[in-house]
Amino acid sequence: MEKTGVLYAGKAKTIHTTADKSRMVMEFRNDTSAFDGEKMEALEDKGRVNNLFNAFIMEKLKAAGVKTHFIERLSDTESLVQNLKMLPVECVVRNRAAGSLVRRLGVAEGQELSPPVFEFFLKNDELHDPMINDYHITTFGWANEEQIAQMKALTFKVNEVLKQLFAEGDLILVDYKLEFGVVDGEILLGDEFSPDGCRLWDAKTMEKMDKDRFRQGLGEVVKSYMEVGERIGVTF
Amino acid sequence: MEKTGVLYAGKAKTIHTTADKSRMVMEFRNDTSAFDGEKMEALEDKGRVNNLFNAFIMEKLKAAGVKTHFIERLSDTESLVQNLKMLPVECVVRNRAAGSLVRRLGVAEGQELSPPVFEFFLKNDELHDPMINDYHITTFGWANEEQIAQMKALTFKVNEVLKQLFAEGDLILVDYKLEFGVVDGEILLGDEFSPDGCRLWDAKTMEKMDKDRFRQGLGEVVKSYMEVGERIGVTF
Ligand SMILES: Nc1ncnc2c1ncn2[C@@H]1O[C@H](COP(=O)(O)OP(=O)(O)O)[C@@H](O)[C@H]1O
Ligand SMILES: Nc1ncnc2c1ncn2[C@@H]1O[C@H](COP(=O)(O)OP(=O)(O)O)[C@@H](O)[C@H]1O
Ligand SMILES: [Mg+2]
Ligand SMILES: [Mg+2]
Repeated sequence: MEKTGVLYAGKAKTIHTTADKSRMVMEFRNDTSAFDGEKMEALEDKGRVNNLFNAFIMEKLKAAGVKTHFIERLSDTESLVQNLKMLPVECVVRNRAAGSLVRRLGVAEGQELSPPVFEFFLKNDELHDPMINDYHITTFGWANEEQIAQMKALTFKVNEVLKQLFAEGDLILVDYKLEFGVVDGEILLGDEFSPDGCRLWDAKTMEKMDKDRFRQGLGEVVKSYMEVGERIGVTF
Repeated sequence: MEKTGVLYAGKAKTIHTTADKSRMVMEFRNDTSAFDGEKMEALEDKGRVNNLFNAFIMEKLKAAGVKTHFIERLSDTESLVQNLKMLPVECVVRNRAAGSLVRRLGVAEGQELSPPVFEFFLKNDELHDPMINDYHITTFGWANEEQIAQMKALTFKVNEVLKQLFAEGDLILVDYKLEFGVVDGEILLGDEFSPDGCRLWDAKTMEKMDKDRFRQGLGEVVKSYMEVGERIGVTF
């Protein structure tokens, strides 16, 4: 499918329009950002690795009954997806305490969260993606109650599928962020699932194998993404 | 009822034990704090004004069917209350955008919120009372689901009663914070309701008549508290 223009160039991906208005090409770039875009770097091969990683995960989720925008992988760095009207919120599920939760609530990194914690954030870099709740979302019109319920249910469903998948690769799915969008009145999982948007720790050594390596300057970022992928069956 | 000791001296009130373990004396001090205790000052007559204000509101809430810890006013600055096991969360309802909501979500101060927004905060000065959601509360054991539902319902019920009461005094109830506690398995409204823990604006001039006068150094703090009280029928 030929690209006809750029709808949106984000911090790590570019969404290209196609002749078919209902389909977009999602291009995974090497660009990597952290701290709301304050830290930015191009990491060699990351676009390709994340595109293959994401395609693998989206297929797994589809097989488990989670409807996603993913149609097919087109090239090393591009995938065809359905054009969604994105809801401006991020859905986070946490199986263990890490990152902003540790800072906000003063709990120990790694503490198991049982049951897992769900959080909504407003997708807004300028405001530094503030945490929000159901009331903010409905009062400000970012989504309706039915959409809120569906986003929560789908995000937890993804947890059941992926916690297990990563566990089989001796990895702990610590937390992850999902974005949803609407098409024909239906909510679909959009955006991506890759080590850019989740935390994955080696189950034995507790080594971080996700974007925290970039945030914390630990090096071997893309190498770790590939190792994680290989452990769960992705072929790079 | 005679005081036998101090259970807890907070930033603005002291909770004294009595010979009856189920009853406490709540003493309203002149101490006034803002910014998690960073700004502190004793404001003449505030303890008395808030004690009378709170007693008046608690009676109104009781009359409207909201169960509270309030038993009776004992003196100018003291009231007798039931001893509660406090839940470590603050319940906020906002009818208009102000304060931290404006900063967090970048919305205009004074914007009407319809329906009103409900927010939970963890009562923890060191962590600067972070916003939390139902999942944090249940996972960390700060309250259970039934208690969460009751706190929300009661906080909204208080809104119906007090929005109306203040409107009759030409005042806008912008937002307020409540704390709840448990006794004999039942949730009761605890702590206080005074201009120290809510925002009240003059409906015509939009003048702030609450603790924001202290936070923002606008002066005439206690004078405004008294005017607000007089407008709704409190006798000082
Ligand atoms: N199926 C889709 N249709 C339209 N937009 C999408 C779709 N999937 C993801 N998006 C949006 O495209 C952007 C992806 O690029 P990214 O670099 O992650 O951007 P950002 O910096 O905004 O996070 C995001 O803003 C995301 O919400
Ligand atoms: N009925 C009650 N029983 C026991 N503790 C209470 C009761 N009502 C309020 N409290 C607690 O007493 C303290 C009131 O004093 P305050 O100066 O407001 O303290 P703080 O600085 O902690 O807000 C609060 O911590 C509040 O949770
Ligand atoms: Mg993104
Ligand atoms: Mg207090």
